[in-house]
Amino acid sequence: MTTLQNDTFLRALLKQPVEYTPIWLMRQAGRYLAEYKATRARAGDFMQLCQNVELATEVTLQPIDRFDLDAAILFSDILTVPNAMGLGLYFETGEGPKFEINLQSEQVIRQLTVPDMAKLRYVFDAVASIRKALNGRVPLIGFSGSPFTLACYMIEGSGSKEWRNVKNMMYARPDLMHRILEINAQAVTLYLNEQIAHGAQAVQIFDTWGGVLSHKAFAEFSLRYISQIINGLKRENESRRVPVIVFTKGGGQWLEQMAACGADALGLDWTVDIGQARRLVGDKVALQGNFDPFALFGTQKSIQQEAESILADFGQGSGHVFNLGHGIHQLTNPEHVKVLVDTVHQASRQYHL
Amino acid sequence: MTTLQNDTFLRALLKQPVEYTPIWLMRQAGRYLAEYKATRARAGDFMQLCQNVELATEVTLQPIDRFDLDAAILFSDILTVPNAMGLGLYFETGEGPKFEINLQSEQVIRQLTVPDMAKLRYVFDAVASIRKALNGRVPLIGFSGSPFTLACYMIEGSGSKEWRNVKNMMYARPDLMHRILEINAQAVTLYLNEQIAHGAQAVQIFDTWGGVLSHKAFAEFSLRYISQIINGLKRENESRRVPVIVFTKGGGQWLEQMAACGADALGLDWTVDIGQARRLVGDKVALQGNFDPFALFGTQKSIQQEAESILADFGQGSGHVFNLGHGIHQLTNPEHVKVLVDTVHQASRQYHL
Repeated sequence: MTTLQNDTFLRALLKQPVEYTPIWLMRQAGRYLAEYKATRARAGDFMQLCQNVELATEVTLQPIDRFDLDAAILFSDILTVPNAMGLGLYFETGEGPKFEINLQSEQVIRQLTVPDMAKLRYVFDAVASIRKALNGRVPLIGFSGSPFTLACYMIEGSGSKEWRNVKNMMYARPDLMHRILEINAQAVTLYLNEQIAHGAQAVQIFDTWGGVLSHKAFAEFSLRYISQIINGLKRENESRRVPVIVFTKGGGQWLEQMAACGADALGLDWTVDIGQARRLVGDKVALQGNFDPFALFGTQKSIQQEAESILADFGQGSGHVFNLGHGIHQLTNPEHVKVLVDTVHQASRQYHL
Repeated sequence: MTTLQNDTFLRALLKQPVEYTPIWLMRQAGRYLAEYKATRARAGDFMQLCQNVELATEVTLQPIDRFDLDAAILFSDILTVPNAMGLGLYFETGEGPKFEINLQSEQVIRQLTVPDMAKLRYVFDAVASIRKALNGRVPLIGFSGSPFTLACYMIEGSGSKEWRNVKNMMYARPDLMHRILEINAQAVTLYLNEQIAHGAQAVQIFDTWGGVLSHKAFAEFSLRYISQIINGLKRENESRRVPVIVFTKGGGQWLEQMAACGADALGLDWTVDIGQARRLVGDKVALQGNFDPFALFGTQKSIQQEAESILADFGQGSGHVFNLGHGIHQLTNPEHVKVLVDTVHQASRQYHL
């Protein structure tokens, strides 16, 4: 393997000394970039882009070529795993993901099994291809949805504002919900280990919907299965620790519990006071975040101020990976992204002397 | 005025001794009740129901007649105030509220003024009529949207998943946002004082969208104006204190700051650990909440367990008003509501010995 030329991101996740605060952006390879839209048009639809190793590699590297980012993230979808379970993932134009089969009857749930990882080979091939294309410039992040977040889409059959069917099952038939979550946790463990084996140098678990739960339900139906996955991951590869990041959107109230889940770092959405979060979690985990994606719609000056304010709130020392508090919006001006990336690199040096 | 026969709710808000934990439910007069749907069909559309004093009184009392609730809440809409400002509120079937005029240009924003309260007379008449109809059975709660929550709809012109135009203005033109919020705060102060003068015995400020803000933006654009309103309210009427409840959905991380805003009580959504919240706010405020509305879709037994768990988490003593963590869902089974209300009344007595 080629030597890693910039390992700032990996060191920050492990709270080792760095010269500046590293930055990457959730959904950094996306529709706000003209070059992404061009590649996607060549690929066909979104899933065809995910399944085309060459083009998935191309879009993963586009933001790395354009901005001075400190990590790349595998271009893929969070719902590849339930798709491999045979639920039939599809995307209708202008709408979110949908499944042909929904887990709303006990019979269908009883038939659910951990999928053969061979069905996800396109993902592992993409990981290997991206690692090669990166050629050691920055580390590559692999990822998966959390068991609960996957279950949300699998039960509802699509995105939802209120996840009524999910909560219905959770409160009325918790046994069925636990069955789905157990299978998801086993599948995600295999899936992330394969990504690591193919070259992912860190992994992030996206718990996009854990924040819709009550604090008790979060512990029982989301965090517990995330811990189970982390316990089953290969944490060292190529003689280096593979850090795990857990991001629960809306999880700002639960950081103390989350800090004990085995992750090296916790992602924070923009509602969290990162200074207070650091005081809460202490030395247990690093923190990633948490710039409001919509603050990129401000002026250059307001973007700089907002970024500086987050750096100051985190304060001195390592253990902070700068990021947005959620995926970048498709209408974002790429020039503003450059302002953010450069501001973070310059303004953070004073905190790492 | 008739003597109040059940003032448990008012005493709990002021942390005075009570015999049991009082309960009311956000959106308790609503579509989950067949009798509500019948009255609404007679009224015409939703706004016609709000503006019909007799029918608004009727629906306000329906849940009081059916369940053993400890408070009634004025039947109205949170957007009556911007409607009185001339923005043209309307409802399309099956969709949320919309405005004919959106605050997306500086010119329109410069023309915005505090409305004449005479335009909201139908609300104040409803308050007086409901008080009379209640005849002292339980106290009546008045309410308003928070300045920021009103601004969200006024700027966007409708509900929104991401409030992009709102955040755009907030980050790029904070001066315009502050102008709208200042006018809203003045208007809401007048509006709530009129409700109090007409007989509201407590008031709740619904900050439904404050939780989409970063912690700093919340302090600057939402909480600051809520404090301003509370400072301007008449806090005593009919020789009794008029308690103020502030409910920020998604505000669980900010309870310490919120406890200093002048409110007597804070509403909690279902994501908050009410025991931890009580330890955070100490003796400063009472707490209201925080049963997941979807937990009403469980079994009778799971509903009882969930309610008992919240009561136990709050623990001994006064200062808790039981409620849902959000409005009741229209598909809720009214029989389950009865289970919840009766469980709270019975199971809470041990915490008030």
